[in-house]
Amino acid sequence: MLGMMQPWPLTVDRILGHAATRHARREVVTRSLEGPIVRTSYGEVHARAKQVSNLLLDMGVRPGDRVGTLAWNTWRHLEVWYGIMGIGAVCHTLNPRLHPDQICWIINDASDRVIFVDEPFAELLLSRMDRAPSVERVVVLNHDYENLIADQPEDCAWGGFDEETACGLCYTSGTTGDPKGVLYSHRSNFLHTLMCLQPDVIGFSASDVVLPVTPMYHANAWGVAFSAPAVGAKLVLPGARLDGASLHELLESEGVTVSCAVPTVWTGLLQYLDQAGATLTTLKRVAIGGAACPEAIIRGFHDRYGVEVRHLWGMTETSPVATAGAVSPELLARPFEEQLPVRLKQGRAPLFCELKITDDEGRRLPEDGRTFGRLKARGPIVSAGYFKGVAGDILDEEGFFDTGDVATIDPDGVMQITDRAKDVIKSGGEWISSVEVENLAASHPKALLAAVIGVPHPKWDERPLLLVKLRPGETSSREEMLGHLEGRIAKWWTPDEVLFVDDIPLGATGKIDKKAIRAAYADYRLPGT
Amino acid sequence: MLGMMQPWPLTVDRILGHAATRHARREVVTRSLEGPIVRTSYGEVHARAKQVSNLLLDMGVRPGDRVGTLAWNTWRHLEVWYGIMGIGAVCHTLNPRLHPDQICWIINDASDRVIFVDEPFAELLLSRMDRAPSVERVVVLNHDYENLIADQPEDCAWGGFDEETACGLCYTSGTTGDPKGVLYSHRSNFLHTLMCLQPDVIGFSASDVVLPVTPMYHANAWGVAFSAPAVGAKLVLPGARLDGASLHELLESEGVTVSCAVPTVWTGLLQYLDQAGATLTTLKRVAIGGAACPEAIIRGFHDRYGVEVRHLWGMTETSPVATAGAVSPELLARPFEEQLPVRLKQGRAPLFCELKITDDEGRRLPEDGRTFGRLKARGPIVSAGYFKGVAGDILDEEGFFDTGDVATIDPDGVMQITDRAKDVIKSGGEWISSVEVENLAASHPKALLAAVIGVPHPKWDERPLLLVKLRPGETSSREEMLGHLEGRIAKWWTPDEVLFVDDIPLGATGKIDKKAIRAAYADYRLPGT
Repeated sequence: MLGMMQPWPLTVDRILGHAATRHARREVVTRSLEGPIVRTSYGEVHARAKQVSNLLLDMGVRPGDRVGTLAWNTWRHLEVWYGIMGIGAVCHTLNPRLHPDQICWIINDASDRVIFVDEPFAELLLSRMDRAPSVERVVVLNHDYENLIADQPEDCAWGGFDEETACGLCYTSGTTGDPKGVLYSHRSNFLHTLMCLQPDVIGFSASDVVLPVTPMYHANAWGVAFSAPAVGAKLVLPGARLDGASLHELLESEGVTVSCAVPTVWTGLLQYLDQAGATLTTLKRVAIGGAACPEAIIRGFHDRYGVEVRHLWGMTETSPVATAGAVSPELLARPFEEQLPVRLKQGRAPLFCELKITDDEGRRLPEDGRTFGRLKARGPIVSAGYFKGVAGDILDEEGFFDTGDVATIDPDGVMQITDRAKDVIKSGGEWISSVEVENLAASHPKALLAAVIGVPHPKWDERPLLLVKLRPGETSSREEMLGHLEGRIAKWWTPDEVLFVDDIPLGATGKIDKKAIRAAYADYRLPGT
Repeated sequence: MLGMMQPWPLTVDRILGHAATRHARREVVTRSLEGPIVRTSYGEVHARAKQVSNLLLDMGVRPGDRVGTLAWNTWRHLEVWYGIMGIGAVCHTLNPRLHPDQICWIINDASDRVIFVDEPFAELLLSRMDRAPSVERVVVLNHDYENLIADQPEDCAWGGFDEETACGLCYTSGTTGDPKGVLYSHRSNFLHTLMCLQPDVIGFSASDVVLPVTPMYHANAWGVAFSAPAVGAKLVLPGARLDGASLHELLESEGVTVSCAVPTVWTGLLQYLDQAGATLTTLKRVAIGGAACPEAIIRGFHDRYGVEVRHLWGMTETSPVATAGAVSPELLARPFEEQLPVRLKQGRAPLFCELKITDDEGRRLPEDGRTFGRLKARGPIVSAGYFKGVAGDILDEEGFFDTGDVATIDPDGVMQITDRAKDVIKSGGEWISSVEVENLAASHPKALLAAVIGVPHPKWDERPLLLVKLRPGETSSREEMLGHLEGRIAKWWTPDEVLFVDDIPLGATGKIDKKAIRAAYADYRLPGT
């Protein structure tokens, strides 16, 4: 027997439609690439997004066609997103931080027919157009875009297709092998939006003013381009200027209450605030993800600025938010110092994200907060496969996706990433978390960056090697670094050797590039082996 | 092109499954009908709900079968809900406040095979079993229930069916004609849950302690039996004692932060608090709905107890929450006195509930906050029809359901109910809101209750007649009552006559029974007509 409720497919065009109907005058504010602040509203963004749809239809774009964007967070990028998605085409976000050759590879793989691009990236793209034969049109957002949409009608039929229809395409940053496309559906993006709106996840209200520093060009800007209009929150888009001073100016001038960014951005803001003696008068909460949140950020925001840090974790394949670090009522009642170790964990999986940890054979491991295993996820916000079926069947027999991370889950359901599966060091049949050791090493005052990799060992299979990049002008020693770790990790986790290096390579997303380090030290042998 | 995300049907068993996995130890506390407080947890409720499922399967209950409940809000009622829904049977909530003959009529109409009942209602039900031939078993919750489930296994396969599967059945209170069944789907209940979790609607977090006074036996307890476990909020169930003193004791002893009830309950609590000089130390927010919220409740909670009142509106056919009165940022910045008129409105429709107002011919009317018209709703939480197709096609050509209410919508999207469509008084081609006039009349210090109906008039078709029930010992006059209205309503809205009466009939849900009043005054003629 079926229920007798109304059919109403979960297509994301309804989200902007709702904002335009019930929150039409709520502002969308952008720091434009040219500099000045541009103010518009959900009503106007909705009307102009429909002009974009009509432009695309004129260009011959049809449902299922991929349309690329290579742009900062601006009101125009928002219009283009909804303009593409509303007619059932696929919004393919391109990451300008990737190497231009890789961007071309991705465009070709996706067969993008039209690309919307911000001027700073246009030249790069246009000079390589001979290598992207699928692309019929490139529209420069801060150049010909306004002219192209100006005469288009502000009305266009949106939606009306199955909620499982492809909505967005985003390639994983590809630390191993070629990049792979994650193909979001309208349904998955819509459900992810509803999940993020829960108070324990990101939790916007119409009274919030939201500044997503997290880019729309990667991992859906953590869903903010959907979740803010879904409730009529004012949206503040930072364009290209993500330094501490520029962000602080926007946070204060627009009365921002919630913001989202990766740790490096927050470190930049805190440094600026501390140096300038500036304050945060409206900001209540920052969400942080993309990399583990350093203690200094949580402390800095809490102690000096009274701002709550909400730790998030996820990945392109999880839409991306998969866990959120809202603190439990039991913990909230305890002093902040006691909360800190839990706030440093990645948080709890909300409804829509089931998690388990397993050993290499896929057997479930206990959720005791100590045992670590491969972290796997299941739910409507999680990938079932990659674009065009590359990599084949990626789910285990229970339908879980292997995140490639290694984690613990404690009895309260709080998850902590301890390593990447491929970075974990397997020593004598046991696992050593490379991340835990390198985080500790990096906390030494003289260290700027630290990396730990496994290197071959005749007896233990692998042993840890620590690389340290010192702060300018500092000198240190093996003994000093290892002494810093003593008593804080198991003795057998102690690196066998410490190498001081000029530089530690970082990947496109700012994370330490273990793959490059492993390649560079492929022939390295530990002393005495 | 379809997206490549995981299939994961939105079936409500996953909600309790999530609570049992991630919030297993979070408490579910009940004031039992016998008196003592009973403490259990989501983990235990989940295990026992599976025992209920196995009991039902043993009894031969199959997917699509209707299983009735006639019970207060208790942990056992919660177990029975999920036990029924988890195996794809339909949880049919019966309202004990209806007349026993009407309950029997509804049981027959639904063809309930099994009924779970609280002892206080069991006798009533069992004495009429000859008139409910479909019922094969009656399980008394505080009698044979424990024995029946005790030996059942705590494991049972839940879900695995289409999310459009029928999940719950609730009959409308039937002020006109026979009661009609609203047949919720798993999907509609799930989406309603996600909608309610938005901060601007009800917005629970895992740190909340939630007391739903709103009964599980009608309109889904406003979804709280789903939304609290969905985020792991502690649940406090009041059983049968809903008076001010009993509620206050529970609110304080269990640390309740959010509660939901109809206005009469809150009036009772406020009276108790004021008389006892008691305080509310943990309560932050109360949701109020089921009838328009009197100003005295909003003021009382705000001024004397620092508690926010969240005005909700909806009906059985809208799952039930359809609008919520979270205050806009612009208004929040203004003094409370200026917020009050907006807080008295029913609020804004969240995503999932589209609203429009139309004239009698179905033409859309302007949303200017002044024009009132028939209120119509569309969305995945709104009925498409009634059980067994009675009443036929109930949607207009745009797919909207006529709520039977008359309302205004202001430019900020805030809706205000001005009347029931059948109660609105049509005078000289224009509409007079009977509710607005009677609310004003009831605000006279001497008035206990007031009702306004339209009576025939040779020139104007209808004119308003005001009935007033005075407070004990008071005397008043036509002039005094009409003088109270002067200047507060349009002159032509002024009732043509005032009648002082001993009593004003109320319906089963505590609302003024206009139908009965109209029947009683069917032959009434205004003086001079």
